[in-house]
Amino acid sequence: MIPTIAILTDFGTNDTYAGVMKAVILKIQPDAQIIDLTHAIPRGDIRAGAFELWRVAAYLPPGCIILGVVDPGVGTERQPIALDLGDVKAVGPDNGLFSYLLFEHQIQGVARLEAPEFRLLAASGTFHGRDIFAPAAAHLACGRELQDLGPSLSGIKKLAAPELSVHPDGSISGEIIHRDHFGNLVTSIGRLSEASGRIKLKDWTGGGVTHELGFGSSRVILADGTRLSLARTFSDVPVGQALAYTGSVGLLEIAVNQGDASQMLGLTIGDTVLLNDGEG
Amino acid sequence: MIPTIAILTDFGTNDTYAGVMKAVILKIQPDAQIIDLTHAIPRGDIRAGAFELWRVAAYLPPGCIILGVVDPGVGTERQPIALDLGDVKAVGPDNGLFSYLLFEHQIQGVARLEAPEFRLLAASGTFHGRDIFAPAAAHLACGRELQDLGPSLSGIKKLAAPELSVHPDGSISGEIIHRDHFGNLVTSIGRLSEASGRIKLKDWTGGGVTHELGFGSSRVILADGTRLSLARTFSDVPVGQALAYTGSVGLLEIAVNQGDASQMLGLTIGDTVLLNDGEG
Amino acid sequence: MIPTIAILTDFGTNDTYAGVMKAVILKIQPDAQIIDLTHAIPRGDIRAGAFELWRVAAYLPPGCIILGVVDPGVGTERQPIALDLGDVKAVGPDNGLFSYLLFEHQIQGVARLEAPEFRLLAASGTFHGRDIFAPAAAHLACGRELQDLGPSLSGIKKLAAPELSVHPDGSISGEIIHRDHFGNLVTSIGRLSEASGRIKLKDWTGGGVTHELGFGSSRVILADGTRLSLARTFSDVPVGQALAYTGSVGLLEIAVNQGDASQMLGLTIGDTVLLNDGEG
Repeated sequence: MIPTIAILTDFGTNDTYAGVMKAVILKIQPDAQIIDLTHAIPRGDIRAGAFELWRVAAYLPPGCIILGVVDPGVGTERQPIALDLGDVKAVGPDNGLFSYLLFEHQIQGVARLEAPEFRLLAASGTFHGRDIFAPAAAHLACGRELQDLGPSLSGIKKLAAPELSVHPDGSISGEIIHRDHFGNLVTSIGRLSEASGRIKLKDWTGGGVTHELGFGSSRVILADGTRLSLARTFSDVPVGQALAYTGSVGLLEIAVNQGDASQMLGLTIGDTVLLNDGEG
Repeated sequence: MIPTIAILTDFGTNDTYAGVMKAVILKIQPDAQIIDLTHAIPRGDIRAGAFELWRVAAYLPPGCIILGVVDPGVGTERQPIALDLGDVKAVGPDNGLFSYLLFEHQIQGVARLEAPEFRLLAASGTFHGRDIFAPAAAHLACGRELQDLGPSLSGIKKLAAPELSVHPDGSISGEIIHRDHFGNLVTSIGRLSEASGRIKLKDWTGGGVTHELGFGSSRVILADGTRLSLARTFSDVPVGQALAYTGSVGLLEIAVNQGDASQMLGLTIGDTVLLNDGEG
Repeated sequence: MIPTIAILTDFGTNDTYAGVMKAVILKIQPDAQIIDLTHAIPRGDIRAGAFELWRVAAYLPPGCIILGVVDPGVGTERQPIALDLGDVKAVGPDNGLFSYLLFEHQIQGVARLEAPEFRLLAASGTFHGRDIFAPAAAHLACGRELQDLGPSLSGIKKLAAPELSVHPDGSISGEIIHRDHFGNLVTSIGRLSEASGRIKLKDWTGGGVTHELGFGSSRVILADGTRLSLARTFSDVPVGQALAYTGSVGLLEIAVNQGDASQMLGLTIGDTVLLNDGEG
């Protein structure tokens, strides 16, 4: 079976950059299934790209090849790599873009993309997505092994994990790491599960349960002092009212039922969010 | 043959929501053909989504599965459904999104999406597109029957039809129901056919010809009194001039040749449009 | 093998226009591989579309069918055509959209799309993309020949080539022909190669080398007198600084390392750019 190639970039869709990468893939592997994860990662925002890849990874088909290009250092000494993570592979720049995938996956292998026969002839200095990464993804989809593409590397560059702290008084602080199309805000506080009425909190490195909070009593406190109760879904509060809830990837999210939370609450990426037991 | 899955949502493409639905589909049915109808339905605008699905339905491949998610009530008691319409199937929330399809199709069956084995494990309260609707569409594409997905329902929720009235003086009034990327305005007046120089008008429920107007003599009258002649295509009027014409789905449309009618005429969705025989 | 169909339009993605063209294709050829080049060509800007098609053509899979629709004159006497260029075919309006492809390809044949059995029934006057061009592309993907689609034409409409002049003092002037998502500016000065430290300049008609400039010494001079050195890639200059370089399709481009050159330098499409030997 031909693996799916899932593309994530900061190229936008106004240009033909994403389209030409698909053309290059199909020239090498005409039967590839190609899907767009998004092309709207903010320009050069490696961390936003890393977070989005973490959010989707569990849903990718087995054997899927992630083609990720958020690459402000194109043409510098940062390495072009292919990464084997067992269930999925990834191809792109070694600048941290794939490092949040390591929260869930073990590295099985890393190759530096060096073999000239798996690049386009005369690779440009400015469009490695077309000339190096898309061909590598396509050749992997044809069944090539990582070691065919270039020499082994011992690891990949890692970004700092999203902020998440458990304080002595039992409260937990995190940060807003994503604002979606609807104005819903995703925080770094999680990964939450709601079994038996208690919130089980894991740290980002996957190191097991570190904290529990009561689901009914806990409160989310925003920077300006606003307090939000935890709800299960949007419609648990009236239209126009704010709520906090466990979002679709197990992170604490903040939304307004049928409204724009980012705008209405004046919150943006990087803002601090506190979760406590409702006593404070 | 594997059916095409055609996706329409209000998710936008800045997030990975649409992308992750495709990943979920390909995990279940790796050979699916997936196309995007649009992801730019205005947030929560069920009627706009219903209208767009009506506009495209006749062009979908036989057996096509529509995956439609405009779902402001996600997590409430509105039902998740699969709908068999003969030529096409549809999967999504039962909130009226699919009701304009009934202008052209008969319901062959409706199922409530309940069977846990055809959902993702631990479906979230906020992202049924990924957890319930995409898997159901993929399982239908694998050949599953509606009755496998859950118990039968007797019908679906219906929206009011677009406004269209024939007045005692023979004039016809309708409303603007869509503004496209070019600023062209689509009205609810139709469905028109131009055989033998007469406009044949059907009502939205498909109830046959209810009115005829002369093609040459008829006038479109806007709310501010502006009168437009009927033309066959943009270039029948000079560049920059407004016209009314039978659009590509048989509805009366208003445009400006190489211009933006919405902006130039100050018209927007919901505005009333009158069509008469040119005497008034 | 089923050829890839690569779509380029000015339809945007807010409407279902692009989606319905894909539906029409899959109804005729269910196994087609369809890719979006872009749908964001500025409205009616045939030249911008022609330039984008030239930029991507070399990367398309063999046998690829370009479905190009930038068609301000839809419904007028401009011809709907299919074009055989050897490696690729193209389908769309004969308004110059495909004329820059002739810089690299020879015309093998042109057909006027006339045969009613390869159009949708009752083609509209305003949406030839759906009713004439998408069906023609799909039938070509099924193996139909150009001559099946309609009578032969002797050539296609051509646009003026991008501006490029070599002056008596050895300097070269061109114009900015594209602004990308990042604010990078693509000029008509090219097509450059950097072999052996010399810039080899070709004219747009492919007529061989017409000029050489020293790579180290040459300067790019903007309309306001700003001078830029030639660099190999963004990171050859500090973050926030402007540079000129040979872009990914061999044209001279102007960018700001991790910045927006269009905004920072106040440059836009049509502005003149001068390249000289650094003496002036």
